[in-house]
Amino acid sequence: MTHSLDNSELVAFYRAAGFGGRVGWGSKAAVLVIDMAGNWTEPDAMIGSDLGGVTAQIKKVITAARNNDVPVLFTTMAYDPAMSDVSRVSRLKTPHADKMVRGDQSTQVIAELDRRDDEPLIEKPRASAFRNTNLISILVDRGIDTVVIVGCSTSGCIRATAEGAVDLGFHALVPAEAVGDRSPSAHTANLFDIDQRYADVVSVDHVVEHFESSADR
Amino acid sequence: MTHSLDNSELVAFYRAAGFGGRVGWGSKAAVLVIDMAGNWTEPDAMIGSDLGGVTAQIKKVITAARNNDVPVLFTTMAYDPAMSDVSRVSRLKTPHADKMVRGDQSTQVIAELDRRDDEPLIEKPRASAFRNTNLISILVDRGIDTVVIVGCSTSGCIRATAEGAVDLGFHALVPAEAVGDRSPSAHTANLFDIDQRYADVVSVDHVVEHFESSADR
Amino acid sequence: MTHSLDNSELVAFYRAAGFGGRVGWGSKAAVLVIDMAGNWTEPDAMIGSDLGGVTAQIKKVITAARNNDVPVLFTTMAYDPAMSDVSRVSRLKTPHADKMVRGDQSTQVIAELDRRDDEPLIEKPRASAFRNTNLISILVDRGIDTVVIVGCSTSGCIRATAEGAVDLGFHALVPAEAVGDRSPSAHTANLFDIDQRYADVVSVDHVVEHFESSADR
Amino acid sequence: MTHSLDNSELVAFYRAAGFGGRVGWGSKAAVLVIDMAGNWTEPDAMIGSDLGGVTAQIKKVITAARNNDVPVLFTTMAYDPAMSDVSRVSRLKTPHADKMVRGDQSTQVIAELDRRDDEPLIEKPRASAFRNTNLISILVDRGIDTVVIVGCSTSGCIRATAEGAVDLGFHALVPAEAVGDRSPSAHTANLFDIDQRYADVVSVDHVVEHFESSADR
Repeated sequence: MTHSLDNSELVAFYRAAGFGGRVGWGSKAAVLVIDMAGNWTEPDAMIGSDLGGVTAQIKKVITAARNNDVPVLFTTMAYDPAMSDVSRVSRLKTPHADKMVRGDQSTQVIAELDRRDDEPLIEKPRASAFRNTNLISILVDRGIDTVVIVGCSTSGCIRATAEGAVDLGFHALVPAEAVGDRSPSAHTANLFDIDQRYADVVSVDHVVEHFESSADR
Repeated sequence: MTHSLDNSELVAFYRAAGFGGRVGWGSKAAVLVIDMAGNWTEPDAMIGSDLGGVTAQIKKVITAARNNDVPVLFTTMAYDPAMSDVSRVSRLKTPHADKMVRGDQSTQVIAELDRRDDEPLIEKPRASAFRNTNLISILVDRGIDTVVIVGCSTSGCIRATAEGAVDLGFHALVPAEAVGDRSPSAHTANLFDIDQRYADVVSVDHVVEHFESSADR
Repeated sequence: MTHSLDNSELVAFYRAAGFGGRVGWGSKAAVLVIDMAGNWTEPDAMIGSDLGGVTAQIKKVITAARNNDVPVLFTTMAYDPAMSDVSRVSRLKTPHADKMVRGDQSTQVIAELDRRDDEPLIEKPRASAFRNTNLISILVDRGIDTVVIVGCSTSGCIRATAEGAVDLGFHALVPAEAVGDRSPSAHTANLFDIDQRYADVVSVDHVVEHFESSADR
Repeated sequence: MTHSLDNSELVAFYRAAGFGGRVGWGSKAAVLVIDMAGNWTEPDAMIGSDLGGVTAQIKKVITAARNNDVPVLFTTMAYDPAMSDVSRVSRLKTPHADKMVRGDQSTQVIAELDRRDDEPLIEKPRASAFRNTNLISILVDRGIDTVVIVGCSTSGCIRATAEGAVDLGFHALVPAEAVGDRSPSAHTANLFDIDQRYADVVSVDHVVEHFESSADR
């Protein structure tokens, strides 16, 4: 396995098995910005990595979204300081959960992305933004049928959110340069699986052009 | 990236980032046998691959389970012949959905696993056995807090079910030899992610020994 | 308490407490026909009652829907003959669950409603059509944001489905003459609660007129 | 319809139709205290009513729970000040949603119930404590199979939470004196439905005695 999406032999093998179709855009999109808070974006934080390049790409996506009335929603992860509202199995499997304390600066969306007051911030307890949160209600209510997923980490919350999206009937797209992961191999392997199973992996330019050319929203 | 779980450098890197803890067993386990029907087990079927070795390992697990009063549950995937009860986004992304027709022999659990009448067969519409099914209700009702996940495919339904299990507070274990995938690279990469994020990846022997030594069920 | 919705004093009291607003129609509707199978429609069945008048009203609603390209979806309840896929707590609380056997004629939608092959039939394990089923996926996928709920029973599955609909962000409407209940008092009390909390209770004529006047679908 | 549970004729009619069975206790219980915050307990608040008597009964239940190592969990409802994380359909149907502002004193559990730091506080977006929250994960993780539901309002969040509990396979009990509602008729009608369909309606004394006599927790 190479770490590139250009593994044409493997792609052909999957295509023959009925994977990797193109879903494309529905009629009304939103952008989901996953876990772009200090716990993940500070390279010195336990669970952090250098996401500088990813952040710049996310800014391109959300700027185009805001300029074209495409809703932008954010997620973070946080539990109460006593860790009473998170399962023990979560904490055993991923002990970094204990670093995610509600109210701490490290759980706030980074200033660089300039979240607006009317852009929802979903506090998600698990990897998928759809799991045990009110996100489904917010999206259905606004008539959104397509989600563009950006942020981190590709092998965790991005993949899980893409899976949750198609599970619930949404079109999902992942612009490859706008998602990041601490592990290059996990990033590549999971982008492959995402593209084959859950969401169309596309470029940031494709997303920006779509937002700018859409007059019907 | 090697395709082995013995990538000790990567494991150490993840451990330092707060991943890959051991969850272990809870107090009452069940076995979930995922999608062991002809559509997946016949090498000539669109979505099939050679799972002969996996089937033999699954038989070891469920024999030990049945001998020790550990419940065994099965899943399959099937939609109505008109495909009215599956989303169009699912069919676009994974066109093999159209091969999964309720009532067809190819959606039935293979005879070799000898499903008993009182062992539930969950018809799941999506990758995770927990998504949009009654599985959570059946497990809670029986006081089950631990799921052992076997079957296929590692990179799809096995991973998604392990993720769903910990999302909902269950202990989850995946015996590595009892899960299979059409792609060796996807199998290895996803076992790594599963072990770091969702379920303890263990051996079939470990599971069998646990079932045989548990007197409290 | 009278059994009429014209209890104007109580309505005013609720209105002052911030209940009973009008939600109205969204942009794309579907009709959900709840549990119109022999188990519920045969007066001699354990859980049945005389729903003849309700059936006639449902036919008006679904005829108008079909004539105007409004999707119609059906539900029923059924478990496997060994009752392995239903919780024991369900069976203890409502022992009639044991009469709902998958494959039995009594769980099929009554012939009078003439379900078409491309109209989904959702087998729901619980009162709400949204609970542990694939319904959310089907609705989101089709861009539906409004559900018109008809069938039985007002105090059980109708109310629970209306609650589930607004929980998930849908507009919900219940045409009063097209829902029925074995108990007149439960019917009235629950229509009141539904109208105050979950769905707009309207007339069948209102629904039919809306379907016939909608050109945008 | 009388407003009493002693409507023996109606009860017999329901019993014959397979409703109203006794579910009883499972093996490990928790208490769910629903929405006992100023917005609901202050008679002058928009959505408030006089719950003084109910509060005293809840104290009996949670004192017995705390003395016998039965976990106690609390819920409240709150949205961000911009109301970006609540659906518009919710706000249209129940405009009092706009009074539920995250961080306001009126959304905090009343001091009289003396919530401990290690007792989870679930911020629920909808009537049911199980809908779009992490509650299921917390309960499964702790091996809890039985919920005792107290608080308000009987016709809204209590009923919806009882329904959610049995939907997910839990035993559910509602001690009648420890739940309240602004409307006596809605209180009575909904206790009847709860007892027939979802949870065993019992006395506070029954719950206290059970907690005090249980040595196995």
